[in-house]
Amino acid sequence: MTIPSDPALTDLGFAQVDLARVARRGRPEAIFSQGKTPAQVVAIARALAEAGQTALATRTSPEQRDALESALGGTFDVARHDTARLVVVRAQGAETAPRKTGTVGIVCAGTTDMPVAEEAAITAETLGSPVVRHFDIGVAGLHRLLRRLEDIRTCRVLVVVAGMEGALPSVVAGLVQAPVIAVPTSVGYGASFQGVAALLGMLNSCSPGISVVNIDNGYGAGYLADVINGVGE
Amino acid sequence: MTIPSDPALTDLGFAQVDLARVARRGRPEAIFSQGKTPAQVVAIARALAEAGQTALATRTSPEQRDALESALGGTFDVARHDTARLVVVRAQGAETAPRKTGTVGIVCAGTTDMPVAEEAAITAETLGSPVVRHFDIGVAGLHRLLRRLEDIRTCRVLVVVAGMEGALPSVVAGLVQAPVIAVPTSVGYGASFQGVAALLGMLNSCSPGISVVNIDNGYGAGYLADVINGVGE
Amino acid sequence: MTIPSDPALTDLGFAQVDLARVARRGRPEAIFSQGKTPAQVVAIARALAEAGQTALATRTSPEQRDALESALGGTFDVARHDTARLVVVRAQGAETAPRKTGTVGIVCAGTTDMPVAEEAAITAETLGSPVVRHFDIGVAGLHRLLRRLEDIRTCRVLVVVAGMEGALPSVVAGLVQAPVIAVPTSVGYGASFQGVAALLGMLNSCSPGISVVNIDNGYGAGYLADVINGVGE
Amino acid sequence: MTIPSDPALTDLGFAQVDLARVARRGRPEAIFSQGKTPAQVVAIARALAEAGQTALATRTSPEQRDALESALGGTFDVARHDTARLVVVRAQGAETAPRKTGTVGIVCAGTTDMPVAEEAAITAETLGSPVVRHFDIGVAGLHRLLRRLEDIRTCRVLVVVAGMEGALPSVVAGLVQAPVIAVPTSVGYGASFQGVAALLGMLNSCSPGISVVNIDNGYGAGYLADVINGVGE
Amino acid sequence: MTIPSDPALTDLGFAQVDLARVARRGRPEAIFSQGKTPAQVVAIARALAEAGQTALATRTSPEQRDALESALGGTFDVARHDTARLVVVRAQGAETAPRKTGTVGIVCAGTTDMPVAEEAAITAETLGSPVVRHFDIGVAGLHRLLRRLEDIRTCRVLVVVAGMEGALPSVVAGLVQAPVIAVPTSVGYGASFQGVAALLGMLNSCSPGISVVNIDNGYGAGYLADVINGVGE
Amino acid sequence: MTIPSDPALTDLGFAQVDLARVARRGRPEAIFSQGKTPAQVVAIARALAEAGQTALATRTSPEQRDALESALGGTFDVARHDTARLVVVRAQGAETAPRKTGTVGIVCAGTTDMPVAEEAAITAETLGSPVVRHFDIGVAGLHRLLRRLEDIRTCRVLVVVAGMEGALPSVVAGLVQAPVIAVPTSVGYGASFQGVAALLGMLNSCSPGISVVNIDNGYGAGYLADVINGVGE
Amino acid sequence: MTIPSDPALTDLGFAQVDLARVARRGRPEAIFSQGKTPAQVVAIARALAEAGQTALATRTSPEQRDALESALGGTFDVARHDTARLVVVRAQGAETAPRKTGTVGIVCAGTTDMPVAEEAAITAETLGSPVVRHFDIGVAGLHRLLRRLEDIRTCRVLVVVAGMEGALPSVVAGLVQAPVIAVPTSVGYGASFQGVAALLGMLNSCSPGISVVNIDNGYGAGYLADVINGVGE
Amino acid sequence: MTIPSDPALTDLGFAQVDLARVARRGRPEAIFSQGKTPAQVVAIARALAEAGQTALATRTSPEQRDALESALGGTFDVARHDTARLVVVRAQGAETAPRKTGTVGIVCAGTTDMPVAEEAAITAETLGSPVVRHFDIGVAGLHRLLRRLEDIRTCRVLVVVAGMEGALPSVVAGLVQAPVIAVPTSVGYGASFQGVAALLGMLNSCSPGISVVNIDNGYGAGYLADVINGVGE
Repeated sequence: MTIPSDPALTDLGFAQVDLARVARRGRPEAIFSQGKTPAQVVAIARALAEAGQTALATRTSPEQRDALESALGGTFDVARHDTARLVVVRAQGAETAPRKTGTVGIVCAGTTDMPVAEEAAITAETLGSPVVRHFDIGVAGLHRLLRRLEDIRTCRVLVVVAGMEGALPSVVAGLVQAPVIAVPTSVGYGASFQGVAALLGMLNSCSPGISVVNIDNGYGAGYLADVINGVGE
Repeated sequence: MTIPSDPALTDLGFAQVDLARVARRGRPEAIFSQGKTPAQVVAIARALAEAGQTALATRTSPEQRDALESALGGTFDVARHDTARLVVVRAQGAETAPRKTGTVGIVCAGTTDMPVAEEAAITAETLGSPVVRHFDIGVAGLHRLLRRLEDIRTCRVLVVVAGMEGALPSVVAGLVQAPVIAVPTSVGYGASFQGVAALLGMLNSCSPGISVVNIDNGYGAGYLADVINGVGE
Repeated sequence: MTIPSDPALTDLGFAQVDLARVARRGRPEAIFSQGKTPAQVVAIARALAEAGQTALATRTSPEQRDALESALGGTFDVARHDTARLVVVRAQGAETAPRKTGTVGIVCAGTTDMPVAEEAAITAETLGSPVVRHFDIGVAGLHRLLRRLEDIRTCRVLVVVAGMEGALPSVVAGLVQAPVIAVPTSVGYGASFQGVAALLGMLNSCSPGISVVNIDNGYGAGYLADVINGVGE
Repeated sequence: MTIPSDPALTDLGFAQVDLARVARRGRPEAIFSQGKTPAQVVAIARALAEAGQTALATRTSPEQRDALESALGGTFDVARHDTARLVVVRAQGAETAPRKTGTVGIVCAGTTDMPVAEEAAITAETLGSPVVRHFDIGVAGLHRLLRRLEDIRTCRVLVVVAGMEGALPSVVAGLVQAPVIAVPTSVGYGASFQGVAALLGMLNSCSPGISVVNIDNGYGAGYLADVINGVGE
Repeated sequence: MTIPSDPALTDLGFAQVDLARVARRGRPEAIFSQGKTPAQVVAIARALAEAGQTALATRTSPEQRDALESALGGTFDVARHDTARLVVVRAQGAETAPRKTGTVGIVCAGTTDMPVAEEAAITAETLGSPVVRHFDIGVAGLHRLLRRLEDIRTCRVLVVVAGMEGALPSVVAGLVQAPVIAVPTSVGYGASFQGVAALLGMLNSCSPGISVVNIDNGYGAGYLADVINGVGE
Repeated sequence: MTIPSDPALTDLGFAQVDLARVARRGRPEAIFSQGKTPAQVVAIARALAEAGQTALATRTSPEQRDALESALGGTFDVARHDTARLVVVRAQGAETAPRKTGTVGIVCAGTTDMPVAEEAAITAETLGSPVVRHFDIGVAGLHRLLRRLEDIRTCRVLVVVAGMEGALPSVVAGLVQAPVIAVPTSVGYGASFQGVAALLGMLNSCSPGISVVNIDNGYGAGYLADVINGVGE
Repeated sequence: MTIPSDPALTDLGFAQVDLARVARRGRPEAIFSQGKTPAQVVAIARALAEAGQTALATRTSPEQRDALESALGGTFDVARHDTARLVVVRAQGAETAPRKTGTVGIVCAGTTDMPVAEEAAITAETLGSPVVRHFDIGVAGLHRLLRRLEDIRTCRVLVVVAGMEGALPSVVAGLVQAPVIAVPTSVGYGASFQGVAALLGMLNSCSPGISVVNIDNGYGAGYLADVINGVGE
Repeated sequence: MTIPSDPALTDLGFAQVDLARVARRGRPEAIFSQGKTPAQVVAIARALAEAGQTALATRTSPEQRDALESALGGTFDVARHDTARLVVVRAQGAETAPRKTGTVGIVCAGTTDMPVAEEAAITAETLGSPVVRHFDIGVAGLHRLLRRLEDIRTCRVLVVVAGMEGALPSVVAGLVQAPVIAVPTSVGYGASFQGVAALLGMLNSCSPGISVVNIDNGYGAGYLADVINGVGE
């Protein structure tokens, strides 16, 4: 097998927009917005939307969100999610991703983990997965988890988001069959080291069936949850 | 929902063998052998096998493997895997896990990553997943990956094992639709820091669709691969 | 207040045995044996026992334990604890510490944490605290903890020992009133970093009422548990 | 024993306020304010106060403190502690925690450690412990500690707060019988690494009878001091 | 051989401008601007330009760039490069570095790596190397690299710039003969640790023929590329 | 020997000003200003100056320097050093420290290290040592050091300040007899880790005769240089 | 351009020997021996030598070296280098790499760095570069370097090997025009952290013209030196 | 000033023995033995002793000590110090270093720190300083220090050696005028990280007048103590 010599892409000079990704991977390229100028984010989003693909801009600043809305709002459908720092741009009337049969459960330990949990939730929804949310049910008050356990056990994939000691994924995974995607957050202070404590906790979980994504990487968790949710469909 | 007050377990004093796990999670408890005495490993394996469950002992030393064979070999089916440091103990004639329809692909970057890759492969096979192996196809010679890409793209789940800079999961994930479970290994020296370089590389992958398990955690990767392989079955 | 100018001590040249500690702190000096020659450990233990104090040698090697037994066994009461790597030397017929009314609970997550848990248990017992042990009840099988919770809630102080992700102290503390002394262990591999993952997890616990001692420091935990157990007596 | 299926809680969507905690653990849930919006902090505090519980908001920003005062000041008793970054909200005329018989001593090494020391002091007072403060008596001028030693030795529990090299807990613990809760602070620069040097120093103390909480975690230290102070009451 | 006792330098008190460097090393001293006052940067640049040497100020702030332009713009040729944070000051009509025959290829993985890539490109150009740029061709879409591979293989030296997992240098080096200078960037978040993940990845590359410079050190990469480009000329 | 029970100190509540230090240690207490309120710094400086001692406030902010000048400028001699972030307050007409016979040499590698070098220089001068400065003579242009070597070899003590790789102390120490106090600075970026690279370099020097202080600790270096300079006087 | 679909390789199952590398990269694949069984190393070396390529086995154990000699010694030319831990296997009478015109200088700081320096030297010689060695000329006695400087300045590329603080590459690079490949070694103790101090020092060099390879990576340095030495040939 | 072009050295190929050091620095080159072959250590010691200089071999293994004794014992004076891992070789009848008037105090916290303390003591004695030893007087029993304080205050320089939390130098420095050289040791376990905790504690000391050498670097501390002891002589 060879890599095709003439791939679909839009060459913007500062960016090679990978239009072939949706065919190759089943989902379009997302825009990692952090560190880009608003104009760069807008240009890449426009290139994707003009090609009929869904542009998902992650880790946007308020300025980038404003720029996307004002530059593209008239021409395309622009959905802005401030808590999750996401913007979704689509050609008007474009087909959305087909809705999968299984459900993705998004669980988070504390209120402060919500931005990351929402980033995962909206990403999975944008890619075609039904989502249920269970927020602020960390291990300090275990009954908060147990009263929702029946619901949680019906999900086909779970994203479990936690900062501080990051114990929630171990506890959840110990009680379910579904695969658990653990997301450490930078919530905490002192020896949490901006999420390192949670990350290490999750990597060393005594419960199998868990894997881990980068600190605060709600997008990656939501993307992977949707991929797993589609396994066997 | 409440946690049942009277769970199935065998109390060995030094160990509470969790017989309820197979019902709760779909797969039996494994034995983390490192740091246990051979007698402890044997006793736990016996308790599981006597309850009709498959006992999978991980990270065993040669002494532990010898002890399992000599103590349990007459009574139970004992399969020993030296490269993977695994021993599987089952009641004779016990049903094995039902074989799933999808295939798990186990890919590793170098020959030296084989013990971890084999640990993943045998774990997934033990739990019921068909497995294909693609070993020593790291990014220093990209054509070794590309000539197998067609086969790799047919797998339902991929486990990608790599040490040193751990770049292979990013490259593989960029070319497939299946979820990628990345396993960093402690292969390397100097600034590899016993697998930390590979771990960080995998956590920071620019390709979405990847999640990561602990360094050298072939068992966890194989377990999770089997769980994902069963999604939708 | 001044520090007394003429304290009780035995000057061995290589060691200044602090005989005044029992009066000042309520408990005698222990012997940190790691890195000392067997002869040094024996000499310090002899000095303490000859002064009528209990000599507790911690982190002993088998050679040091042999030396203590053979050199002091005839003259003093020598109790050897191999799993805990402790030796207790007392003048024959010496009074033991008065038994406190409250109970110290020693909880550990896995069988492999037993050496540290035993070190804590024997230390607390030596200093005068009744002890109950609950071993291998980690969060991967939560029911193992819950079925013992009633017993655990009757303890006046809890020592909770765990390696890997170190989640057990958070979960226990969330369910009890007693103070929890968390002890991370070096059990694990890869990104456990010899107990760092567990240590960080415990320091960042979302449950208040927890404090932490050094990795594998069963002695310190048992000592402190006995001190807290005596508060108000 | 089972976890009750119908616990007392107020479901705010973004937060599950754990009203059952005061029954289960003897003290109400506190509000970790960092990273929450002022509106979220206010809503949780209101839920606790309306349930007749004391709401203690920790690590508040000035904006959060203003919001608590203006939103809840008319209806509830609102006590604001700027140095400690705490706000305490109670139903007017609500019973405060019963005053314990023992005293908690709060000792700090330098003037700059005061915010953390005050956080510990006010937390312990709020929960019912009498508190004495000994500030700026670090080891660079040992006589400052020694002249207060008689007072310090009368405390039932000690919280010892220090940044930089964090040596004070070792020195204090070597001179007293009471349990010492060591609190590292982020005071320092360069190789203090925002409190890591102090944290490591305290974890490695050569004096037993010490345990450690997270860097700058005055709340956790004060909470635990009150718990220990109540042992045997 | 001895070091000459009377070297060419301009003593500014706060700086000893090393005018002998161009004779000794073939390239003039550059100005590390970060942490200097604008006045200091201007004075050093002036001293170099007055000596007929090219002054290259790196890591400049906007204020420093403004100061260089306004103070030296009338007297000297001042070229300002905002993306690269560089300013080049030369005596008007001064000879530029002779143009080398080989080409330096500057490759970067993502749009966000452009400031570092541009710093390398402009440095190499200033020192006399022809430069070609290939931006945003990271491994998540491998075809973007492969379609430019023929061009890349014609370069005599390659600078490969990447953040996140930093996998691109390994992949490029595996496909070419030229030496690869790998530049990790601080692009990323969470466990990228401001470029440490990329740095470690590059240091542990399984492809030989790679060496690494400091995180974000575009200047050092461009300088070294020009040196290597001149080997054998 | 006992510690005196009634030491000279001024109890300000938030600070115990150690007036006995000048008798005990030969030099008065300095004020670590970082993290203190301007009012606290002023009060401590006033207490020292009123006791006839020299108050040296280190790591001051501009606000603290303004407060010291405006509050104490009329009553005391107030000397402000902005580059070094130091303020020296003395009773008017107070005796300054007697001038020692030896000279302290302050050497720094780059212009950007000057704030730390100046902090060392002014501290040593304030305590009574004559000081010579050699700035910007780092190893990238070795002749800058060698042409000053004769002068440097006449110093009785050397303070060598460097950031980045921190190589200068090794090179200087290899050429002189005097003790070298090495001061790593936070100058650099990327893998300098705010001075850690320089700190490690200095701790691992292959030249004996070097010891190291904290990153950016010009005060500590200047103090120690003055102490060593006075040895044998 | 596409990657050829049918590359030259020998599939050994556990290894895909990349015979196409010599055409693609100008130098054959080397064997990273650490972690491989002797039989695996022998099989790969045989496959390379049978294809007429030079097999260079790096980081070999004595057992691996014995196995290579005894298994391949009769059939092939086997050169064993114990200090460098290298073995070179070639078909008898095979052409060696053509000798380049420039010289590679291998400089090391101390006697203890010799194994790494020799690994670099023999690698470069095997690949076709003339090599000169200058060993034990570290910065603690600068004259040892200076008396060889004239020779060193005639080299076309320099490999500078150092442990401890790793200062030698900065000093050498400051005195020459040639590119400097810096190799940190794990020589040292304590805060050298197995070569991390040297690695960081080299990455933060204040002298441009330096790049760095992994700790103890003599092979990588020698390979790259040969590549650079061939630039322009 | 220039570096002399023709320095005194013995070129052994693998080592350039720096005979000029004693003239340049006042003390001869020492032999860092770790990682050298016994034959290399012997050859370097012989070269120094034959030149009439004192050869001090540090960090020797038992094999190296045996080799030095058997190879050089007949010809030279060979003094072997097993605890300190030092061997001193001198021409028979050679003059020893002149004895200085001041005394160096070597203080250590625990018995286990003795090897490092002895290394410092014997080094200082070998170089000409009278030495007094105060061992096992750590802060857990402060009176052990205070009863020796009068003696300690008579020393001209102090070397203070401690592992674990490394608090002793801060406490000692707070009570004396002499400069304190702090030596962290690798004594401890868990979060001591082989001496890192002690190192950080000492670097962050709140007592000025302290500087720090590498972990376990008794040689460097003894050398520097002798240099400082000679200041003003």
